[in-house]
Parts: sequence; C-alpha cells; structure tokens
Amino acid sequence: MTFRSFEIKRYKDGSVERTLDSIATEEPLAIRVLHWRKDSQQAENLAVTMRTPGADKELAIGLMLSEGVIRSAADVRELRAIGIEPSNEVLVELARSVDFEQWRQRRNGFVSSSCGVCGKASVDQITQVIPPRPSLPWRVNAAFIEVLPAILGTHQSTFQQTGGVHAAALVSLDGKLVSLFEDIGRHNALDKVIGHSTLSNLLPLNRHVVFMTSRASFELIQKTAMAGVQMLASVGGPSSLAVDTARTLGITLVSFVRDRRFNVYSGDWRLDF
Amino acid sequence: MTFRSFEIKRYKDGSVERTLDSIATEEPLAIRVLHWRKDSQQAENLAVTMRTPGADKELAIGLMLSEGVIRSAADVRELRAIGIEPSNEVLVELARSVDFEQWRQRRNGFVSSSCGVCGKASVDQITQVIPPRPSLPWRVNAAFIEVLPAILGTHQSTFQQTGGVHAAALVSLDGKLVSLFEDIGRHNALDKVIGHSTLSNLLPLNRHVVFMTSRASFELIQKTAMAGVQMLASVGGPSSLAVDTARTLGITLVSFVRDRRFNVYSGDWRLDF
Repeated sequence: MTFRSFEIKRYKDGSVERTLDSIATEEPLAIRVLHWRKDSQQAENLAVTMRTPGADKELAIGLMLSEGVIRSAADVRELRAIGIEPSNEVLVELARSVDFEQWRQRRNGFVSSSCGVCGKASVDQITQVIPPRPSLPWRVNAAFIEVLPAILGTHQSTFQQTGGVHAAALVSLDGKLVSLFEDIGRHNALDKVIGHSTLSNLLPLNRHVVFMTSRASFELIQKTAMAGVQMLASVGGPSSLAVDTARTLGITLVSFVRDRRFNVYSGDWRLDF
Repeated sequence: MTFRSFEIKRYKDGSVERTLDSIATEEPLAIRVLHWRKDSQQAENLAVTMRTPGADKELAIGLMLSEGVIRSAADVRELRAIGIEPSNEVLVELARSVDFEQWRQRRNGFVSSSCGVCGKASVDQITQVIPPRPSLPWRVNAAFIEVLPAILGTHQSTFQQTGGVHAAALVSLDGKLVSLFEDIGRHNALDKVIGHSTLSNLLPLNRHVVFMTSRASFELIQKTAMAGVQMLASVGGPSSLAVDTARTLGITLVSFVRDRRFNVYSGDWRLDF
C-alpha cells in the first residue's frame, strides 16, 4: 500500500474542516543477505532503509547494485520477501561467486579512511568501484528534455494523491517511458528503477535517460554511474558535488526541468539545441 | 561557503545561453568522537554525512543529540574543526560521564533486531530513548501558522540563490525567529537547529515551534522528539510513519503550510481556529 488515509483538520481561508487525507506510506525495509563464506552460507543484515512499500525486491537489488555488492542479476541466486505479511523484509541469496567479505572490507576501508571526507576523494572512490560501462555517443534535442515532465505526468499516481513522494523514471531515447517508481525517498525511487532494470537484464543503462522529480544530489549521480546511465535529468536543482562528479565521470546532468526550461550542468555535448 | 558558481548552459523558450549559476554546496563531513573507555580515551569515527558546509559543529552536536549519544551541552568537553582548511572534519570530545560503549551496544541491538522492521517497533524504540521532556499546555492560533513562511522568507538566503536547499527554523511562541539553518539535506538543517539550541542551552525546546521547508518524514519527528519540540510545521507533506509517530508521542504536526492554508495531522488541540 503506497498511501493511507488519515482523518485530519484542514485550514483554509480562515475556516477549518475535518476531512480525510491521503498520505504516502513510510515504513522500514530490512535487507537480509545470504552469502557464502568458505563452504557454508552466512546470514547478514545488510541494511534497514525507510521506504514507501512496493517494489521492495527491486529496491533491495538496486541498492545492492548501487553499493557495488552485486554487478548483475546473475549475482543473485534467490530473492524473496520474508517475515509476516505485509512483509517489511527481503532476503537476497547471493551466488557463490560473489565475494561479500571482500566487498565489506573495501567499504569499511572507505568509511574509516580519513581521505573519505573531501569531495575529491569521494569522486575517486566511486570511480574505483564503477564497473566498466561503455559510453555511447548518442545525442538528444532540447524537445526531448522539455517533454519529460509531461511523460511522467500521465503515469504518476501516488504523488498526485499525496504530494509527498518522489518519482524516478527510465526513458528510452525515442521518448518512451520504460519504468517509473515512486518513493518518499528519492534515493529509493532511483534504486527501484535500477533494481528493476537489473532484474530485467537491461544493464548497462547507456541507451536511456533517468528523469527524477527531486533535486539531484551526489548519491543520485553515484547510483546512475553504477548502472551505466549517461544522462540524468531532474526537476529540482543539483548540488555542487553532483555537478563535480557528473563532470568527472562524463555524465550529462540537466536540472530545473520545468515549464519548458532547463539548465545543463555537465556534458552539454549530448544536447542539440 | 554555502554555494558555488558554475558555468552552465541555460535553455528557455527555444534558445540557449551560456551563464553562471549558483549551486548549493554538498560535501562530506566526518564526525570523530573522543570518548573514555576505562581509564583511556578512544578515538572513533562516528559518522560521515553529506551536508552543505556551515554550522558544522552545530550539525555534529545536533546529530549526536538526535541519536541519543549526548543529552546536553554538558556531555561535550571540547568541540572543534580538525584537518585541512576548509575543514570537513569535526572532533567531539565527550565528557568522562558519557558511556559511549553502552550507547553503541544499544544502537547495535536496535539495528540487528528483527523487530526493528515494523513501524510499531520503530516508534517503541524512539520512545525508549527519548529523554523526559516536560510537555507544556500552550496553544497557538491559525494566524501563527499562516505567517511562518513569511517569517522564513525574509531571512532565507542560499535557497533563494540556488533553489536547492532546505531550511529549518526555530520560532518562539511570540512569532520571533530564534535560529535558521539551511542545508541540502533536510535532516541536516534540523540537526543544525537542534545542535545550535543544545550549545545555547535552550533544551528542551518545549516553548518553540520548528518550521521546515521540506516534507515531514519519520526521521524529523524522531529528531524533534529527542529535543523536546512539541510542534513541527512543514511546507511539504508528511509520511504515514511521521503521522503515526507524532500521534503516539503527542507532537503536533502541521503540514502543507503555504498560501495561508495548512493541514493538522496530529495534536490539533494546540491550534485555536
């Protein structure tokens, strides 16, 4: 259930009424991993993330791909919801070839490294772990960007009811909506798109554009890079580190896409005006 | 520096121009802790958070209060920026009376607990760690809420330049702005307000209203509860878990505060219409 009804008081023009209001659901999701260590399987709690229920398996897979735990659907042996219904737990059984211990050591190294606290080092770190994704020299014209909000508008649901969620959409180069996921967290919405694409064997996403209704932060650029995305467009504004990282990685970043306007912060050679 | 200039391409009405654009800065901040273990001091990397530089000490203290590591300014023996300028590291030296190990064990217990993945358990957990904060029976009228955006509007800076940051404001019951902090992350903006209030010995914040330009998620309710705040107002919408938690904890939650309208999701007895 992506939204729930609450009885509230609504104030407007000096008067107040009791009414029912739809609100985006937010609940924790636990991602549990089964991985091989020598000759036995180990269970591990990978993460608990606050999310809007729905596409939980896609969220788990997208998060694990974004973090570098897995590289493709082949790294996942089984994937299922566990626990009491409606379930807030996903179990991901990794293939025997996945070296989870090595991943953990590398990540712990990043977190405790004193170099991890300058933007430059952050960019270097993600560059190190990004799998090789071939860059293709396609271009789009300004009209392609202009119509992105309209493409989303006809499909978005929860947001229109609650005004409280972000949407992430995968759009093909001929302007068709491939997938659309919504979540109260923008990183979750993007993880769901990436996880769905991973499970559908669409990676690398180097023939698609990701469009988000949120702002564009560093973490979104990091996630798009891990999935091989070469263009990110957003309704909200970018952060400085998002721009720096997009420029370093050669990702085209287009923001403030609204009212038939937009700004190009990185990789403007992909745009024909 | 809270924003930086980037050379970009701006597209509007079918034409494109080169221009300079201001963007909210986003950089990692490392929070390092010195705590006592038996008779010696131990250094520890508590967290790395992506934030907009500025008020870093307040951010560190607010985050540590929100997470239950400290309860007041008396728990902090020294607080300073470290590393190369401009510094992205804060060192917090805890008083000898702070049992950091106990805090860590309790937190690890929450994270690994299977019960931590239903909303009910999350609410129970934060209820367990909230310090006793006396609730005062004050009320405000609708006009107090209506003018919150105007109070903020005259003081907000970075957002007006970049359109990319959230603001958190502490407002007294006579409608005066006590403090205002901006950040690309809404949780950081609130942590800065709480940290500043902690260092100013204003806790508990039970005679103030917190007003945020963002949506109202569970984490914001958790943070306000830890600081003793009894009313949170937001421009954006709430999540379902934010409403559930606010109702359980007796916190008044007012959202969609804009254009002289708002919705009351919890604790409407504090509003006079």
